[in-house]
Parts: sequence; C-alpha cells; structure tokens
Amino acid sequence: MNTTTAHTARLLITCEDKPGIVQAVSSFLYHQGANITALDQYATEAQGGRYFMRVEFELDHLHSRKDALMQTFAANVAERYEMQWKLTFVGELKKVGILVSKVDHALLELLWRHARGSLPCEITQVVSNHPDLREAVENFGIPFHVVPVNKDNKVEAYAQINDMMQGNDLLILARYMQILSEDFVSQWEMKIINIHHSFLPAFVGANPYKQAYEKGVKLIGATAHYVTADLDQGPIIEQDVERVSHDYNVEQLRELGEDVERNVLARAVKWHLEDRIIVDGNKTVVF
Amino acid sequence: MNTTTAHTARLLITCEDKPGIVQAVSSFLYHQGANITALDQYATEAQGGRYFMRVEFELDHLHSRKDALMQTFAANVAERYEMQWKLTFVGELKKVGILVSKVDHALLELLWRHARGSLPCEITQVVSNHPDLREAVENFGIPFHVVPVNKDNKVEAYAQINDMMQGNDLLILARYMQILSEDFVSQWEMKIINIHHSFLPAFVGANPYKQAYEKGVKLIGATAHYVTADLDQGPIIEQDVERVSHDYNVEQLRELGEDVERNVLARAVKWHLEDRIIVDGNKTVVF
Amino acid sequence: MNTTTAHTARLLITCEDKPGIVQAVSSFLYHQGANITALDQYATEAQGGRYFMRVEFELDHLHSRKDALMQTFAANVAERYEMQWKLTFVGELKKVGILVSKVDHALLELLWRHARGSLPCEITQVVSNHPDLREAVENFGIPFHVVPVNKDNKVEAYAQINDMMQGNDLLILARYMQILSEDFVSQWEMKIINIHHSFLPAFVGANPYKQAYEKGVKLIGATAHYVTADLDQGPIIEQDVERVSHDYNVEQLRELGEDVERNVLARAVKWHLEDRIIVDGNKTVVF
Amino acid sequence: MNTTTAHTARLLITCEDKPGIVQAVSSFLYHQGANITALDQYATEAQGGRYFMRVEFELDHLHSRKDALMQTFAANVAERYEMQWKLTFVGELKKVGILVSKVDHALLELLWRHARGSLPCEITQVVSNHPDLREAVENFGIPFHVVPVNKDNKVEAYAQINDMMQGNDLLILARYMQILSEDFVSQWEMKIINIHHSFLPAFVGANPYKQAYEKGVKLIGATAHYVTADLDQGPIIEQDVERVSHDYNVEQLRELGEDVERNVLARAVKWHLEDRIIVDGNKTVVF
Repeated sequence: MNTTTAHTARLLITCEDKPGIVQAVSSFLYHQGANITALDQYATEAQGGRYFMRVEFELDHLHSRKDALMQTFAANVAERYEMQWKLTFVGELKKVGILVSKVDHALLELLWRHARGSLPCEITQVVSNHPDLREAVENFGIPFHVVPVNKDNKVEAYAQINDMMQGNDLLILARYMQILSEDFVSQWEMKIINIHHSFLPAFVGANPYKQAYEKGVKLIGATAHYVTADLDQGPIIEQDVERVSHDYNVEQLRELGEDVERNVLARAVKWHLEDRIIVDGNKTVVF
Repeated sequence: MNTTTAHTARLLITCEDKPGIVQAVSSFLYHQGANITALDQYATEAQGGRYFMRVEFELDHLHSRKDALMQTFAANVAERYEMQWKLTFVGELKKVGILVSKVDHALLELLWRHARGSLPCEITQVVSNHPDLREAVENFGIPFHVVPVNKDNKVEAYAQINDMMQGNDLLILARYMQILSEDFVSQWEMKIINIHHSFLPAFVGANPYKQAYEKGVKLIGATAHYVTADLDQGPIIEQDVERVSHDYNVEQLRELGEDVERNVLARAVKWHLEDRIIVDGNKTVVF
Repeated sequence: MNTTTAHTARLLITCEDKPGIVQAVSSFLYHQGANITALDQYATEAQGGRYFMRVEFELDHLHSRKDALMQTFAANVAERYEMQWKLTFVGELKKVGILVSKVDHALLELLWRHARGSLPCEITQVVSNHPDLREAVENFGIPFHVVPVNKDNKVEAYAQINDMMQGNDLLILARYMQILSEDFVSQWEMKIINIHHSFLPAFVGANPYKQAYEKGVKLIGATAHYVTADLDQGPIIEQDVERVSHDYNVEQLRELGEDVERNVLARAVKWHLEDRIIVDGNKTVVF
Repeated sequence: MNTTTAHTARLLITCEDKPGIVQAVSSFLYHQGANITALDQYATEAQGGRYFMRVEFELDHLHSRKDALMQTFAANVAERYEMQWKLTFVGELKKVGILVSKVDHALLELLWRHARGSLPCEITQVVSNHPDLREAVENFGIPFHVVPVNKDNKVEAYAQINDMMQGNDLLILARYMQILSEDFVSQWEMKIINIHHSFLPAFVGANPYKQAYEKGVKLIGATAHYVTADLDQGPIIEQDVERVSHDYNVEQLRELGEDVERNVLARAVKWHLEDRIIVDGNKTVVF
C-alpha cells in the first residue's frame, strides 16, 4: 500500500435532496483538514427527489482518526439531513469470495486482473460445485473449495457456503450455474454480483444464447447485476453488447458473448470495489 | 441513372442446401455473359440446412434481355434446386410509401438521405394520421396526405391507406403510432419495415423509454424489423444501442434514443432497397 | 423559457489546486440561497496540479441579482484562490453563427437539432462561400449570406465575415472548406468549433477519407475541436469512429464518415452551449 | 480433430479481375466432388481491378487427394487466370511462435484462448528477452526460452531466434519491445503479426499512451498489423478503440488500452489462422 492509499477515504451518502448538502459535507471535510480528490452527486429530480453523493478525500493520520471522524460526521452532518451513509477506507482492502461452476472465462478474467493489481481487493477463496477449475485457481495462489450442490442437499450446501464466506465483503457469481436460495440471498443483500449472459431484461433464465439465436437479434450482450430474490431482476450495474450477424450459430454467439461477460463483470466488480455504486431501489447510481 | 446501374441486376435465392449451387448459378451467369460483382452465401447448417445466396452482376442489354433471362434461369437452374428466387434490376427504383404520426426524426432522416442520393428509391408519398408534418415533407417536394385514424374508423382508414399505397414496393413506419390491422399487414408481407424504440425483445409495447428508465438499463437501443401480425415480433433487420447512465431521465433517454432510431431505420431501409435481406422464418439473413 | 431555466446559472472555474475550494464555492452559493443542481470537478494531479470546476445552481431572482452575485463571488472567493472564472446564465441564450461551404450534412444536423429544441442557442445566420445551401437554410427561417472567398480577397472577405459575426458567442465551421486567417482566429479564441473529417491526429489536412483509404484503416472517424492558428491542431472536444472494411471505396468512406461527423459536431456544440467545456492548454476538460 | 475438420480446405486466390472466375473455381470444385461451405470475393474496382477470393470447401479423402487436387487446380484454373493462390488444410494446424518482453496481457490472452480451443494452432514456444514470464507460460504447458537482446548482440540474437523459430508458420509479437532487424523481417514476410498500442497511423513509435495523453484524444486504440521493414507501417489487420475522458492519466490510458490490445491481437491472429486475410499491397482484405 502506498502512502496516498493509506490516507484516502470515501464517503457515500443517500438522503432526501435539500439545499446545503454539498456545503455541509465539504465544510465538514475542510475543517477536518481533508483534501477532496473526487466529488460526484446526483439527484433523481430537479426538486425534492432523492440525493446521492460520493466524495473521495485524503486526510493525514486517517487510521487513528477514523472513529472520531465517523462520530463527528454522524452528529454534525448526517443527522441533520437524515442521511444513510458509509465511510470506507481505501487502505482496507475488501475481502471477496467467488462462486463458479465449470466455465472459466469470467473467473480467470477476475483472477488475472487481480494478479496484475487492477482489482483492489483480497480474493479469499473460490468455491465451486465442480472440481474442474482447481488447478487454474490454485496456480494463482488462491484457495479452491468444492461444495457439491444437488436437489437434495441445497439447504445444507448453501449453509456451508454461507459459513465459508463469513468475513467477506462481496461475493461474485462468475458463472455459478446454481440458483441461490432466498435465505442465502437475504443474508448478502447488495453484496452479491452476478454476470448474466444476456442484455437484460431480454432473455432472462436459462440458455440466453440459444434464446438470442432463435430470436435473430443483431447484438448480443451481458449484464452484471446485484442478486436479489427475483432471478435476473436485481439492480443492473453494467451492460455491454457486441454486434453479431445471421451466420453466428449458438456456439459462436456463446464464444463472443463470453468476451462481453468477462469485461462487463470485471468493470462491475471494479466499480463496487472502488465504492462507485449506490443502490437506488431497483436501480444503481454508478459514479 | 448511370450506365453501370442500368446494367446491374441482383439474384436472391433460397433453397435446400446441396452441393453444386454456386457452380450452377455462376455457370449460368457466365454463359449469359454476365460479370459477377458481388456474391454472398449462407447455409444454416454445415450439411442439409437451408441455403441463401445473393449475387450481383452486370450484363449488357439487361433491359431487353430480362424476360429471357428469367425464363432461362427458371428452367435451367431454379427448378433443379427447387429454389425460391427473385431477380431485381438496380435500374428500376423501388417505390416507397412512408407512414408517420407526429414525431419527425425518423421521417426527416429518411427524406434527407433520399434527397442526397443515399437511399436508392422513389418516395411516392407520406401518409400521416396527423397534419403536423405537412410542411416538413412538402419542403422535400414529396406529397403528404392525412388519413385520420380513430377507434371507430380503423377498417375504413386502413382500407384507404391500402388503396393509396398500391403500386409501392415497400412501406416504412417511421414512428407511426397506430397498430396496423392484421388484414392490412397480411397484404404487405415482409414489405413493411417498422422502427421500434427499444432493443427488442426487451421492452415490447408502449413507452419503451419509460420502461427502460424504470428498469435502470445502462444501454438503450432501437430495432428495425419487418412487421407481422404479432406486434413487435417480426423478423429483426437491424439493432443498435447507445450507452446511458443513471442520470438520464425519460426525456433524455428519448432524445438520445431517437438518434439511434434514425440510424437503425436508415440502415435497414437501405439494405432492403439494395436487396441485401432475405427472410428466414422469423429471422433475417442480411448480406 | 421556463421558470427553472430563468433561475439557473453555471459557474466555471480554473485555478491552482488547493484544499478548500469546494467548501469555499459551495458555502458561497449556500449563503446566497442557491441550490446546487450539478457539480463536477477535476484536478490534473493528485497534489498541486490545475483544478477545474463546473457548478450549476438555481437561485431565485437571479436576473436582478446577477451583478451583485458576481461582485461578491469575485471579492470573497475568486480572489483568494486566484481563479479564472465565468458565470453564465441559462436564460440568456448564446448567439451562434455558422460557416459552411457546399456539403450540407453537418449544417442540416445542427439546424434540425436546433429546430426541435435540442441545441439551446439562437442561430443568428449562416454564411457560406457558395450560394448552394440558401434554400435549405432559409426553410428553417434562418438568414443565409454568401461571402465569396478566393485567393485575392481573403483579407476583405474575412474582415467582412468578422463584422457580420460580431455579437455572436460561438462560430461553428460546419464543413467550411476555407482556412481562416490567423488574424481572424485570434479574435475568436476558443470560440470557433470545427469538425474535421478524420480521427485526429491521424490524417490532418486535405482529403482525409482518401488518406484513410490508402492507409487501409479499419475504423474511420471524425473530430470536433476548437480552432487555433495551427491547422487541425486545436484542443479536441469530441471524437468518434465507425468500423469499415476493405470493401469500402473512398466515396463509401465519405458517406459513412459524414454520419460520424454529424453526430460528433452536434455533441461538441451542445456541450459548448451547456458550458461543459473548459480548455486546459491544448486539451479540453468536458464535464 | 473432428471428421469435418479433416475434410475441410481453403483456397485463397489473388488475380486480375476478369469475368468467369467464380464459375471456373466453383466448377472445378464441383467436379472434384467438393461442397463449398463459404465463399467470399472482393474486387478493388468495378472493372479491371485486382480480384481476391476465399473459398472453404469439404471434400472426402482430402488428405490422400491433396497433391492431385493442387496439380489439377494449377493446370486447369490458376494458370488460365494467372492466379497467385494457396490451398490450406484445416486439419493441418499452423505452428505459431510468440515473442514477448515483460508485460503479459497480450500473451496471456493468446495462451488462454488457445487453451480453451478458440485459436486453432499449435503454439510451439514463447521466446522473450526477459525471464519474467516463464512461470506464466509454463503453466500452460508451453516451452519458454530467453534470448537476451542488447545493442551489441542484435545480429546474433535475431539469428538465434530465427533458428529457433524455423518450422513455424506465424510469429506473433505480443508486446515484444525490440525492433526486429530488416534482415529478420525479410525472412518472415507477412508472417509476423504485431500489436501496436495506438490507433495507427496516429502515434507511431514509442510511448503511444503518453502521446495520446498529451494530445488529449477522446478515444484510445490499438492496431494489429503485419510487420514490414518500415516500423509501424505494415498492412493493418484490425483496429479498435475505447472511449476515454480528460480524467484518465497515462497509467489509466495504458490499463484500458491493454484491454483493447488483447482483443485486437486475438482477433487478428484468429483471422490469420482461419486464412481470412489476403494482403493487397499495403492493405489487407479480411474475409
């Protein structure tokens, strides 16, 4: 960790939109001695909507001042505007667990980007319902565990995975071909990112590339979203598409689509790790 | 029309895939003295699928040899392979009628591209259920007619439009906000192109930009398709998207989306006029 | 003009980056009773670089308070941070003059977007060195003037155009195929936007589509930039590209490229009119 | 290798454009009993230009009939039209050697795509002027060799690499940061693919991301091209770009650009391996 990183924090705020919020937040930070290095805001309406803000700032001795900083902000600013807020510290790497099945493209993209320093997090482990990707994962020096899931053991399997993942800040479904239980999802609210292999809301459910082929679409896509109890309906984080033509068969759509999936998932995860995403009902604000 | 255009024809072929088709077609053309200037083919399967072909060729004295050419091709080639086929002549401009309601972006894009020579066709008339766009159309020297449509006169209105459009080779719905009757559509099979303001199959039906806003998608799109009796379900010709973010409201989505609509519709129409599209069930082959 | 527009202003700031700027600006606006509706900032370095800010805010009775507002800001904030700054009022439409030669695509795109309300400005006149586009311009109700330019009359011609354009806030070269004199350019510093028909810095100078054809590039592009004395070297505002293949001839590259030009120029002009662009040496910051 | 692959061949043809070529080639193949599965053609001019053709076909007992097939084609077809031509057999995997320096993104993309079966070739070895990537390469089961290059040993070093690479059909420079000697390049004419980290012809030479940063471009790109004696001037195979803004520093441009490089290089290599590319002077025809 370099010195700058150790002194950098991010403040994420959601509240009712009212005059004076920028002034209140920036004055608070100024009087603490902080230097604002990035500031983004968004209001859903010109007047009277919901307000969202992300501020990145540098502050000397950040580590030792954390608790005081949070208490002061809560008392002096957050309470007045009835803010939901979160303060994160760039020096404290988020812990990330990955769930995967058999196909490796999304997983390897994440592991490789992580290895070269592009994804600021600690990948604690990869859990799969199949043993196939063990060597690929362990080559990166990351623990790999198999938890088989079948129709008879779902409750136990998800309980086991839930236990194993305790302490993680984020779970990533890098093409995990099992539907998580409602109970499991409810314990990781807005902390699970999934990559769906279509341009949602088109082609929900199974075999989206086959659906795309049969519909004859001219672009195929992928969607990264937070997982909710409604399958493929959670807040969309990022999407992208690639052009195809009539002469792509299902297999070629799949191969091209997997390139889109890799990039879309990597971007969504990076934005989450950089605290750029605030969930707004069934949508995301991405700063 | 320049000399080249007058001597250029296109052959569109659909049949069961069998060995020898390229040889048969190219030999036929060679022995007629034609010069092949473009050739595209596509088969749905490696073996035993459907086969599609588009050949563009130049032939001297094309005009006077048309009938003989078609009879010879039918007897010597088409029959043997049980082809569905069509021979078009670049020198014979297709006649095109446009239906529109109140918004002008898709219409004006077509009229402007036509005026500068980018859409090889004759635009015979524009028919609208509203008078608003009369001046804009007449400025281009194109006849404009109003045929009001309401819930009580639909049968008569569509009968009237159908009469007015007789002799046209193609109808374009450039944001015509009425649902054509099944009867009308059946008389113009694969001869009506519509622009739908979403990335189909996402957001069928009304107000797609509002639907897109509520879903929080990160790309918005448009789809040009042939019109069938099933609303928004006809064969897709072309699609495109633009990136948006959380801070686009419905109006801004609409404004950006209209740029996508303009381009997607113009491309689809151009491809149709250049005989690049062959319909394959509910899909299109675009050469 | 609606009520909101009349009460909305934008503050553009450039200065040396120091702690406290956001706080100073937002406090000033808060104490004036303003509501910040958009805020963007950028610093060229983490520490000690140049700092850029754009703030949009609403303030009651803006019109009558303008002078006082500017004096107070100058005295209380701008001086302390040695800011270069500008306050613009959304209710005061910018005046725009357009220069064009014979090709119409870029011009018509601007006129049409203006007519439908997408470009918030007053287009005062179109000046051309050729009479060809008179009718197209006058159909939009906009004055059209011809000022011929040839190698013998350049000084007089540019003096005449300069006189005609007095009072305008922005000049747009919508494919004006004359090279403006250094003297003319110096009087409209960062107030002339040009569309160049290539992806700069590739293919400066004449015939960029021919250059692109000969080089065999797989993408063609367009670049909107502010005009400086160095031909095709001014600060880039916006660029875009389209994919092409080996079978595009120069004419087809030109036709496709003109679609890119239209969109790139329209976006650049819109951003300028919305006060989103701050020039930073030979680059632009676009908020 | 599956049965289909073993029976599939591709014919690449360049000659002067004359009537009858399609007929001659397709008749030849028909009489040999071949089934044409893909056919593409391109002529540089409507009349009298250069002509290019790629035909893919299936033929039983291909392996044992190769020599006779080539002799017959040469005698009966190629001679008549003075064709330059090449017949390749899908069942005979091309041998590929890779040269790399220290950065791994382009190399790993190739190795991973090869491992999952997306690049139909045999990667015989990776040669680097640095030892850093040994483990990454050997994890894929591919031999890795170090040949240091410095200003004093260039002649010997390139002679050694040339020896090591004998028997390969293609060399790939996956970010090899040495300039190959003219002598070396002349021995591998149109058999070396390089990835240049800019949108050529913009930013030739060293540090293109730094050049792009200083120029303030709004898109950055990458270019895959065949290597000729003129640095960064060889025939362009593929290019792509990504959108950037003022707030990307050089390092961020580099990181995003490397994603473009990976994809552009992988596409170019795949097209070469599938015999889709014919060089036309300083340009490429990509079927």
